[in-house]
Amino acid sequence: MELVTISDIEAAAKRVQGVAVRTPLLLQTWDPRGTLWLKPESLQPVGAFKVRGAFNAIGALDEERRSRGVIAYSSGNHAQAVAYAAQQYGVPAVIVVPDVAPRIKVEATRAYGAEVIEVPIGEHEGKARELAAERGLTLVPPYDDAAIIAGQGTAGLEIAEDLPDVEVVLVPVSGGGLASGVGTAIKARCPRAKVIGVEPALAGDTAEGLRLGRQVDWPQADRARTIADGLRAQPSELTFAHLKQVVDAMVTVSEDEIREAMRTLARKARLVAEPSGAVATAAYLFHAGELPAGRTVALVSGGNADPALFAEILAAG
Amino acid sequence: MELVTISDIEAAAKRVQGVAVRTPLLLQTWDPRGTLWLKPESLQPVGAFKVRGAFNAIGALDEERRSRGVIAYSSGNHAQAVAYAAQQYGVPAVIVVPDVAPRIKVEATRAYGAEVIEVPIGEHEGKARELAAERGLTLVPPYDDAAIIAGQGTAGLEIAEDLPDVEVVLVPVSGGGLASGVGTAIKARCPRAKVIGVEPALAGDTAEGLRLGRQVDWPQADRARTIADGLRAQPSELTFAHLKQVVDAMVTVSEDEIREAMRTLARKARLVAEPSGAVATAAYLFHAGELPAGRTVALVSGGNADPALFAEILAAG
Repeated sequence: MELVTISDIEAAAKRVQGVAVRTPLLLQTWDPRGTLWLKPESLQPVGAFKVRGAFNAIGALDEERRSRGVIAYSSGNHAQAVAYAAQQYGVPAVIVVPDVAPRIKVEATRAYGAEVIEVPIGEHEGKARELAAERGLTLVPPYDDAAIIAGQGTAGLEIAEDLPDVEVVLVPVSGGGLASGVGTAIKARCPRAKVIGVEPALAGDTAEGLRLGRQVDWPQADRARTIADGLRAQPSELTFAHLKQVVDAMVTVSEDEIREAMRTLARKARLVAEPSGAVATAAYLFHAGELPAGRTVALVSGGNADPALFAEILAAG
Repeated sequence: MELVTISDIEAAAKRVQGVAVRTPLLLQTWDPRGTLWLKPESLQPVGAFKVRGAFNAIGALDEERRSRGVIAYSSGNHAQAVAYAAQQYGVPAVIVVPDVAPRIKVEATRAYGAEVIEVPIGEHEGKARELAAERGLTLVPPYDDAAIIAGQGTAGLEIAEDLPDVEVVLVPVSGGGLASGVGTAIKARCPRAKVIGVEPALAGDTAEGLRLGRQVDWPQADRARTIADGLRAQPSELTFAHLKQVVDAMVTVSEDEIREAMRTLARKARLVAEPSGAVATAAYLFHAGELPAGRTVALVSGGNADPALFAEILAAG
């Protein structure tokens, strides 16, 4: 299987420049260890790193194919990212979402001009493939795609540029596109740095899979238990192959740790993180014993927290 | 009276480089007008733009004087900024705070290694001057100082670099150091852009003063009514002279508008803003009729919201 290379990520960096925000690394001066930098991908257009991959994937299409339009299936941030990227390229987008997706994300997707089609959970991928064939649209998958992985990897390239002596990179893992891309960039540019994947324990399929050295399949109903609605997917064959190469270890975090990390991010880092966006910070805060010491970047992957849930979490602790 | 120049601000930019975060401009893609960029100074160390001025002021002292230490009086973010900057320079800091200051800010100031002295409100400036004389410390004023104004102006320099065709810059006004510095930078680099100062209506002394063409004095008790605890000061002779030169107009916002802007910043921009940090965004959202149209930067000056207040505001709307 052919893996994404640092050259692919460098090419992606040129495509996303000026569209994705060059997010700064934020040293957290309140942290007693003094070794935590945040990469706030929550500040991207659409509020998540996903805009990097979407832009790269649509930009990599030939003009004729691109102009016919794109289609995506997603429970959230990927939907918005594809809608936004398509709008920027001036091409039509259809987004198929499960009907349990957070309302805030569905509405935002529509606001970017996409046609949104809601289907029962579990059917959205099939429906998207069916519509792609029917209407001649190009499917932009959420993670199982080399251009998506390369696009997400541009966040890793920026980490390496801004903190060349980084020692630990903490990155959330779900479908694995982000961790594959960021890990590939870090291993190429900062080969001594450790790349640590982070999952909710309730959706810890990749931790188990990497420990066993093979893909495992957790029932959807099990993965759906976590509050981190962006981390309920599991790697594809392609992303799993990358993760085996570039992830040094996995850490799993509890639901309470995710909530506490959201509070810390709001109060100390002044960032609104969605639950999925807080897991890397939760690993730093609550699993120091499982992590190498040293200059650490925690990637805050997204900020689209449901307003009511966010208010409840802030009020609770 | 000698005003701060663009050269002073350029010199300050060299001093703060690598210490203050080079905050990005964040285009707000959810905004139907499509003309809003945020400058998130809430992401600075200590959570506010104040670190720029403090660093520049302490950095501009000669080594002998600096080594004896610094002292500041402040109700909040300036305190933390001076404490943090002094810690970075390795010199002692004493901070005199009014005993009504938000606890989160007092605790954060102590965490940066400063000696914190709490006195009744209204006495903190006098006490600081007394201690400065007694202990041979250099007073770092919150705004009435050319080095502070030049330091804050570096935020304006960055706006001009990142969006050279900016048309409107919205900046909070309290003591006026930020607006003086940012306005000076913008007028030098983007002379066609309008610089608009924003105040809470309940502390609208500068709006009144600039309308009358002379400094006015509002009773402390009146200014204390606003939720925006960072905007209760009023300009000095020095900052007022700058504001007359570089501020094209003033806008005042209501308390409800400030709260609504905090909710919008959290939900749409994924930023935690303190009330003072939200006034420029409130002006954009609710006072479009008083503002020139066009590419607008709203400066989010700080993010140190009291956690309970922030949770209450998020839950309320």
